[in-house]
Amino acid sequence: MIKLTLKDGSVREIENAMPASEIVKGIGMGLYKAACCVKINDEVKDLRTVIDSDCEFEVMTFDSKAGAETFRHTAAHLMAQAVKNLYPEAKLARGPATETGFYYDFEVAKPFSPEDLKKIEAEMKKLAKEGCPLERFELPADEAVKLMEERGETYKVELIHKHDDRGEALSFYKQGDFVDLCAGPHLMSVAPVKAFKLLSCTGAYWGKADEGRQLSRIYGTAFPKASLLEAHLKAMEEAKLRDHNKLGRELEYFTTVDTIGQGLPVLLPKGARVVQLLQRWVEDVEQSKGCLLTKTPLFAKREFYKISGHWDHYLDGMFILGDPYDEEKECFALRPMTCPFQYQVFLNKPRSYRDLPMRLTETSTLFRNEDSGEMHGLIRVRQFTISEGHYILRPDQLEDEFSGCLELAKYMLDTVGLLQDCTFRFSQWDPANPNNKYEGTKEQWEEAQAAMKKILDDLGVDYDIGIDEAAFYGPKLDIQYKNVYGKEDTLVTIQIDMLLAQRFGMYYVDKDGQKKLPYIIHRTSLGCYERTLAYMIEHFAGVLPLWLAPEQVRLMPITAAQNDYARSIAEKLTNLGMRVTVDDRDVNIGPKIKNGRLERIPYMLIIGEKEAESGTVTVRSRKEGELPDMPVSDLINKLVEEVATKAK
Amino acid sequence: MIKLTLKDGSVREIENAMPASEIVKGIGMGLYKAACCVKINDEVKDLRTVIDSDCEFEVMTFDSKAGAETFRHTAAHLMAQAVKNLYPEAKLARGPATETGFYYDFEVAKPFSPEDLKKIEAEMKKLAKEGCPLERFELPADEAVKLMEERGETYKVELIHKHDDRGEALSFYKQGDFVDLCAGPHLMSVAPVKAFKLLSCTGAYWGKADEGRQLSRIYGTAFPKASLLEAHLKAMEEAKLRDHNKLGRELEYFTTVDTIGQGLPVLLPKGARVVQLLQRWVEDVEQSKGCLLTKTPLFAKREFYKISGHWDHYLDGMFILGDPYDEEKECFALRPMTCPFQYQVFLNKPRSYRDLPMRLTETSTLFRNEDSGEMHGLIRVRQFTISEGHYILRPDQLEDEFSGCLELAKYMLDTVGLLQDCTFRFSQWDPANPNNKYEGTKEQWEEAQAAMKKILDDLGVDYDIGIDEAAFYGPKLDIQYKNVYGKEDTLVTIQIDMLLAQRFGMYYVDKDGQKKLPYIIHRTSLGCYERTLAYMIEHFAGVLPLWLAPEQVRLMPITAAQNDYARSIAEKLTNLGMRVTVDDRDVNIGPKIKNGRLERIPYMLIIGEKEAESGTVTVRSRKEGELPDMPVSDLINKLVEEVATKAK
Repeated sequence: MIKLTLKDGSVREIENAMPASEIVKGIGMGLYKAACCVKINDEVKDLRTVIDSDCEFEVMTFDSKAGAETFRHTAAHLMAQAVKNLYPEAKLARGPATETGFYYDFEVAKPFSPEDLKKIEAEMKKLAKEGCPLERFELPADEAVKLMEERGETYKVELIHKHDDRGEALSFYKQGDFVDLCAGPHLMSVAPVKAFKLLSCTGAYWGKADEGRQLSRIYGTAFPKASLLEAHLKAMEEAKLRDHNKLGRELEYFTTVDTIGQGLPVLLPKGARVVQLLQRWVEDVEQSKGCLLTKTPLFAKREFYKISGHWDHYLDGMFILGDPYDEEKECFALRPMTCPFQYQVFLNKPRSYRDLPMRLTETSTLFRNEDSGEMHGLIRVRQFTISEGHYILRPDQLEDEFSGCLELAKYMLDTVGLLQDCTFRFSQWDPANPNNKYEGTKEQWEEAQAAMKKILDDLGVDYDIGIDEAAFYGPKLDIQYKNVYGKEDTLVTIQIDMLLAQRFGMYYVDKDGQKKLPYIIHRTSLGCYERTLAYMIEHFAGVLPLWLAPEQVRLMPITAAQNDYARSIAEKLTNLGMRVTVDDRDVNIGPKIKNGRLERIPYMLIIGEKEAESGTVTVRSRKEGELPDMPVSDLINKLVEEVATKAK
Repeated sequence: MIKLTLKDGSVREIENAMPASEIVKGIGMGLYKAACCVKINDEVKDLRTVIDSDCEFEVMTFDSKAGAETFRHTAAHLMAQAVKNLYPEAKLARGPATETGFYYDFEVAKPFSPEDLKKIEAEMKKLAKEGCPLERFELPADEAVKLMEERGETYKVELIHKHDDRGEALSFYKQGDFVDLCAGPHLMSVAPVKAFKLLSCTGAYWGKADEGRQLSRIYGTAFPKASLLEAHLKAMEEAKLRDHNKLGRELEYFTTVDTIGQGLPVLLPKGARVVQLLQRWVEDVEQSKGCLLTKTPLFAKREFYKISGHWDHYLDGMFILGDPYDEEKECFALRPMTCPFQYQVFLNKPRSYRDLPMRLTETSTLFRNEDSGEMHGLIRVRQFTISEGHYILRPDQLEDEFSGCLELAKYMLDTVGLLQDCTFRFSQWDPANPNNKYEGTKEQWEEAQAAMKKILDDLGVDYDIGIDEAAFYGPKLDIQYKNVYGKEDTLVTIQIDMLLAQRFGMYYVDKDGQKKLPYIIHRTSLGCYERTLAYMIEHFAGVLPLWLAPEQVRLMPITAAQNDYARSIAEKLTNLGMRVTVDDRDVNIGPKIKNGRLERIPYMLIIGEKEAESGTVTVRSRKEGELPDMPVSDLINKLVEEVATKAK
C-alpha cells in the first residue's frame, strides 16, 4: 500500500506504483483535464512521474504558478514545433516559460516578420487541434549528443556538454517528429494549448551580448481558455498606457541613447528632480533613524574584490577596467555592491561594543553587467543609484535592527504608494550548492537562515521561499513588486551576513575585552531610485503625488492682461518652495489646458479677468477635477498641506 | 644699434649683439647678481641668450615666478650632480622646478634614506661653494644620443628619441663633470644656490603607474638667502597643521585604503555630511537661477566618445572598460566630463530659440586617470563629484550668460570663504598647436578667444593668461586656488565652446525659421566637492562654518544628574534641524571638553547643576571663546541666525 497525503489533509491509498497522471484520473476526470503537473513532497514534477512510495501529493492546475509555467512551457514547445515545420533550417536554442507567457530563441537566417508570426500561429493552431501527446524519454550524455547532432541542434549539443560532468541521463520530450532536450515538466499532450498569441520577435544573444551569437526570440502567451487570453491581452493594452518605458519617455522623465549604450538611461530634468526629492527625503529619514551617511569610491582594484569575495563569486556581473586575467597589470572593477567599501568606514579605527550598532548608509551608485536581453527602461539597468546601508551589529542586536530595517522599508514604500502591491520573499541558499556559489559552511548558512526565519516569523511577515536566490554571503528578505505586465523584480532587500566581517578582519572589542566579529545587515530602505520612479510612474499612471511632482502648479492666464497677476501668484508659491511655471504664451487658453493635461500637471490654475479682479483662482486638480473659485490664500494652504502630508 | 625697451619703458641701446648677461652687468652688478633669467619679448630666456635685434627686455630675479623657477631648476641640477658624485650608478630621469621647490627622479638600486639625503645635502654645499659655472651647448640628435649613451643615461636617450622627429638640435647644460640634457634656462653658475634643503624621498614612475618603471624622487627647495629658506620652512611647518591631507584624516573627514587604490578617497560620515550640505545648497541656488537638474550615465560606449572627440583627444585621461583598440568588441569608458551626456537632454526633442538659454546642471561624478604621482588627498583624485553645467545659448546670449556663470561662481566661492584667495586665469590654446591637441580652426579659436577676452575685460576680471591650457574644444576662465603648501589647482572653470554642438548635430530653430548651431558654456559653480572640502579644511584649520559643520553642537553634562536636561536641549536643537550630540559618558568634564576641542566642535555646551536649575547653558564657542551663561532660547536664536546667514 502506498499512502498519498493530499493538500486538504485527506489520505488516498494506491495498491501499486503508478504514474501521477493515472492517480489524478482516479480522483476525477475534470481534475485530470485541468492538471498541468503535480507537486510531490513540495517538488514540482511531471504528471508522468511514477509514484512508488508514500508522499504528499498535490495536483497543480493553471491557476498555480507551477501549473501555468508547465502549461506555457508546453506552449513554447508547440511553437518550436511549428517553427521547425515551417523553417526546417531553424536551430533551437532555449525556450522557457516566463511569468506571463513564454518565449523561444532560434537561430535563423533572418528575424521573423509579423507575417511569419501569423504563419507560425496558424501552424500551432493546426498542431494543437491534432492534439499530439508528449512523450518523455532519457538518454545518457553520449547518445543525447548523437541524437542532437543528427538533428543539427548545435545549441542543444552545447547545453549537453555543460551538463556533462554530472554524469546523469538527460531527458527529452517528443511530440510527433519534434524532439527537444528538456527537463520538463510538460502537459500530457499539446491539445489543451488552444488559446495563445505570439506577441513579438526581438533579438537575443546566446552567451554575453558583446561576444554572443545573435538569435531571434519569439515571445508569446498562452491560456487554457480563449476568454482568459482575451482578458489578458486587454489588460496588456491597458498596461501599455501606464508602462513607464513608454509613458516615462513621453512625459520626459527619461530617455535612452543608442551610442551611450543599453541599460544606461538619461534622466531628463523631470526624472532627475524626482530622484533628487526622493533622495533628500530618504537621507533625512535615515539620518533621523541614527544612520551615518558615507560617500565611498565607485571602483576599486582587483585585490579589493578578492578580499570581499566578489572576484570569485561575482566577476561576470562586474564591469572590469583592464584585463581581469593579467595579474601583472593594475586592474579595477566598477562596484556592483557597496558593502566592502562601506566596511572601510568601520575599519577606519578600532571599534568597541559601544559603537554598535553602527548604521552606515550611502546614496550609492552601482554597476551591474546585465545581459542586454534583460534590460528594460528604468527597471533593469546597468547603472543605478540606491540607498544602500550596512548595519554593523553585536549579535544581540540582530532582531531589533532587522526589524527596524523592515519597518523603515515598509514606511518608505507605503509613503511612495507601492507597499500595498508588494510581496515578500525569503531568499535562501541552495543546500546542494552545486557551483560553489556560496561562501561559508552549511552550519553557518543554517544558523543565518534559522535566525532570519525566527525574525520573520516573530514579525509576522507573510513570505514565499526562494531556494538558490540568496546573496553569496547570506540569506535575504526580498520585497518584490510587479510591473504593469506582471514581471516581478526586487524593490528592496534586507540581508543577514555572518560571513564577510571575517574576510575584512572587522572586529569590535566587547565589554569583556575580547575581540569579536560583528554581524552585518545589508539593506536598502527605498530601493534603487530609477526602479522606484519607474514603478511610481506605472502605479500613478504618470500623475505623481504632489510632493514629488516635478512641476506642481501651472498658471494659465487667459489673456496677457492677467500675466502679471499670474506671475505674482507664481512668485508666492515659489517662495514657499513649490515648483511652479506660468504659461504666458500668446495662445488661447484651450491649447494651454490641453498641454497641461497631457503633461499630467497636478494643479492648473486658470486666471481670467474675474479671478484677477477678485484675487481668486480657478483650480483644475488632476485628482479632484474642477474646483470652485477660491482665494489664493486658501489654495496655498491646500497645496502646502498636501505636500507636507505627502498625500498620495 | 640695437634698441632694448626695458620694463619701465626706458630704452637702452647697445652697439653690437651681446649676451643678455653682459647687458645686465652693464645695467648694474647688483642686478646681475640677483638675475636668474630674462624675458625677451615676453618669452623667458637664458641669460646666455645673445641679443641681436630690437626687443623688449626684462630682467627676472628670484622674486618673479620665472626667476624662481630658473633658480630652483639650477638647484635641481646641483642636487643631481651631488647624487652622481656620491652614487655614480644612479641614472638621471627628470628634474624640474615646482611652485615651491624642485625635485629630481633617479633610478637607483634602493630608495634614498634620510641619511642619504643628509650626505647629498653636504655634497651640494661643497659644490655650491666651489661655484662652478654652468655651460650651455647644443648637439644634433644623433650626437646627443651618443653622448647620453656613453654616460649610461638611458632615460635621457628615451627623451631624445621622443623629440627626435622635430629635427632640432638639443641643448645641454654642463657644470664640471656633470652634463644634463635640458632646455633651460639656468643660472650662470651654481654659486647663488646656497640656501637649500632636501625635504623627502618618495617613489615615482617613469610612464604610467601601472606599467611604469619605479624611480626615486628627491624633493627639495632652494632660496637665494638663508633667512628666506628658514621663513619658508617655518611656514611649511605651520601649513602642515592645516594640511587637509593630515588634518582631514585626523578629524575623520576622509581616509584612503591601499587595496581600493590611489586617488580614491573614502568620505567618512563627517566628510559625506559636508558634501551633502554643500550639494543641496548648490542645487537649490542653481535651481533658483533657472537651472534644470539632470542625471546622466557615468559611462558610455566608445562610439559616443568618438562623436564627442574625447576618444581622439582625451583617451589617455579616461578609464577604459575593455580593450580600446579591439574594434570588434564592445568597449566602454568612464566619463571624464559631463558635456556629451548632458547634450543628449537638449537633443531629446527639437528645440526652438524660445527654449534658450537652456541651463542644464548636474551633480556629476567624473573619472580621470591621473598619474599616481599627481594624487594628493582630496585635491587630486581619480574620481570626484562636481556641479557641472552646460548652458546652451543663442550667440546673442553669450555675454549675459557668461557673466551670470562668473557671478554665480564668485557668490559660491565667497560663501564658502575661499574667494578672497582665488586668482583668475584665462587659459588659451597654443596657436602652434603642435600635437593636434585642439579641435577646430585657427579662425574659430581666435573668434572664441576674442569673445572671451571682451567679456572678461568688460567684467573687469583681473586675469593671467595660460597658453596651451585650454580645453580641446575651447578657451577657459579658470579660478585658481593654492593649497597650504602653495601648490595651485583649479577650483572652478568656465569655458566657451563654439565647436561641439556641430559634432552632435545640436540645432535650434531660430525666429527666422532657420536651423542654427548654439554656443555652449561649460561651467561649474562651486567646483568639485572633494577639492572644495579640502580647501575649506585648510582655510578654516578644520573649524568649518557652523552651517556646514558635521557636528554643530555638543552638550556635556558635568554629572549624570544633568543628562536629562542636556538631552532635552539636544532635542530642541535637533528639531530645528541642527546636528547635535550629547556626551553622556560616565567620565569627568575635563576629558569631555578635551575631546570636543580636538574634534573642533563649534559649540560645546557645558551643563552643570546651576545651568540645569536656571534653564541656562554655559557656552564655549570655538570662534568666540567662553561666553557668559545664557538662557537656552538666546542660544537657539544665536545658532539659528549663524546658520541662516552662513556666517564664516
